[in-house]
This record gives sequence, C-alpha cells and structure tokens, in this order.
Amino acid sequence: MSIKTLNDLFIHALSDVYNAEKQLTKALAKLARAADQEDLVNAFKTHLDETLGQIERLDKLVESTPDVRIKRIKCLAMEGLVKEGQEMIDGIDAGPVRDAGLIAAAQKVEHYEIATYGTLCALAEKLDYTLARQLLGQTLDEEKNADKKLTLIAEKKINKHIA
Amino acid sequence: MSIKTLNDLFIHALSDVYNAEKQLTKALAKLARAADQEDLVNAFKTHLDETLGQIERLDKLVESTPDVRIKRIKCLAMEGLVKEGQEMIDGIDAGPVRDAGLIAAAQKVEHYEIATYGTLCALAEKLDYTLARQLLGQTLDEEKNADKKLTLIAEKKINKHIA
Repeated sequence: MSIKTLNDLFIHALSDVYNAEKQLTKALAKLARAADQEDLVNAFKTHLDETLGQIERLDKLVESTPDVRIKRIKCLAMEGLVKEGQEMIDGIDAGPVRDAGLIAAAQKVEHYEIATYGTLCALAEKLDYTLARQLLGQTLDEEKNADKKLTLIAEKKINKHIA
Repeated sequence: MSIKTLNDLFIHALSDVYNAEKQLTKALAKLARAADQEDLVNAFKTHLDETLGQIERLDKLVESTPDVRIKRIKCLAMEGLVKEGQEMIDGIDAGPVRDAGLIAAAQKVEHYEIATYGTLCALAEKLDYTLARQLLGQTLDEEKNADKKLTLIAEKKINKHIA
C-alpha cells in the first residue's frame, strides 16, 4: 500500500469497501438462514439484495470515474465482523436470543459501512467526483436505513419474545 | 462461547467491548503520535483519556451489577480495525493525506463502538439494569461526540490543507 494523494486514499477506501461488500454477501445469506423471526429473515434477505446493488453501484462508479480503479485488498475489519456474526450462530441456539445476537452483529457491520461510506462521500466531494458522490450517497442512505430497520425489529419483535 | 439468555448475551457484548477498549488505548496513543495537525493530535489524546474513563465505567458497571462479570475474550473486529489504522500509518507519509486516512480509520472505530454501546444500552434496559443503562448511555454519547469531532476536523482543518 502506497498512498500519496487524496485520490490514492479514495481508491484505497473504495477497494476496502468493495471487498467488504463481497464478504458481506456471503455473511448475509448465512445470517438469513440462522435467523428465526420472519421479519429478521426478510430484513437480511432484503439487505442482501441491496448489497448486491451496492456492488453494482461501485462498479458503475469505477467505470464512470477516469482516475479510479479497484485494487484487490482484503478488508480485515469486515473479516473480524463476519467472524463475530459466525460466533453468534455457533454459540447460540436458534430463537429470540440468537436473533438479538444476530442483530447486534449486523448493526456493527452497518455502522462499519456507515463510517466508510461517510468518508468516501467526503473524499468524493473534495475530489469533485460528482457522479461518484451521488452514488455513494445513495448507498450511505441505504446503510443508515438498514441499521434503523434492525433497531425497530429488535425493539418491536425480538425483545417481546424474551421473558 | 455458550449463550442461552439475554444476560449471557449482555455479558458477551460487554466482554467484547471491554477488550476492544483495551486494544483501543494502545491504538489511540499510536494515532496521536502519527497525526500531524495539532487539532487531530489533541482529539486523539482527548479520546484516549475518555477511553480510559470508559474502561473505569465498565469496571464500575460490573461491580454494581450482581449477575454480570467480564469474560476474557478477544474482540476480532477491533483487531481488524486497529490493523487498518496501522496500515494508514505505515502506508502514508506524515501530513494532511495521512491525517485524512487516520480520521477515516478512527471513525470506523467510533462507529463500531456506537453500534456496540447502542446494543448494550438496549440490552441493559431490557434486563432492568438501571445503573448499567445510565453508565453505558454516557459512553455512547461520548463515542457519538468523538465521531462528530473527527468529522469537523476533517472538514475544517485537514481538507483545506490538501490541494
């Protein structure tokens, strides 16, 4: 890794989140299979579809921004986050407590992405990448909504089922 | 790891963040040394002090909550996040671009903690741990403020120095 300019930093952050999203598609499919409450299963499935759309959006961004291409890197933080989700699946029997654990793990992922896309939006703005800024803003909004949806499911559905 | 009840999940999340905060104290000291802009150096130092206070708050929580004790676990996500911060230090020469990279890495950490303390607050409330809920809420507010402060420094100080 050699970063000298803000454009290099943008490319690094973009490559990091590209890999993170790829890791996440596999993880979300597992979370959906491990969840018990129907609303939660559907939330994970919906967010899997959104994540696939976000990867397409990143591809579109790269195609439309001349000085930007994706490097092959492994997002170490997402690797750790995915392992935490797997721990919840392995360590808790199916039911409302596991669902609460899955939501906790998924919200850490959402916040990771909120921070990352927040940075990417700020960098795109500074670099005058207008279309990139717009595409990244759409994804940032989706991540914030996904996080809010999980909070609502935790409050209204899961916690009620726990004595 | 064996989680059967919501209290088990609370203990797991608490143990995870306890380890995360310990890892973070070392990382923040490094970030402060690696930062160039004075405001950013001070922000990392201030947050190091806050983090030490947050660890004390977790100790107080455990002392005051009968069924809760900390288990020794390694927070894998924080391990990945700290490595990302180290990559920024190793891969970028000191100056405004590195500062922007350090802020990006630190904001991922803040968001990790915002998600974790958000979950812990919800669990403490559900478990009727009144003092714990209060202590965790204080920390959650500190993490949100630390994140906002980093955004302000990025917008007002760092980005201005990059052509």
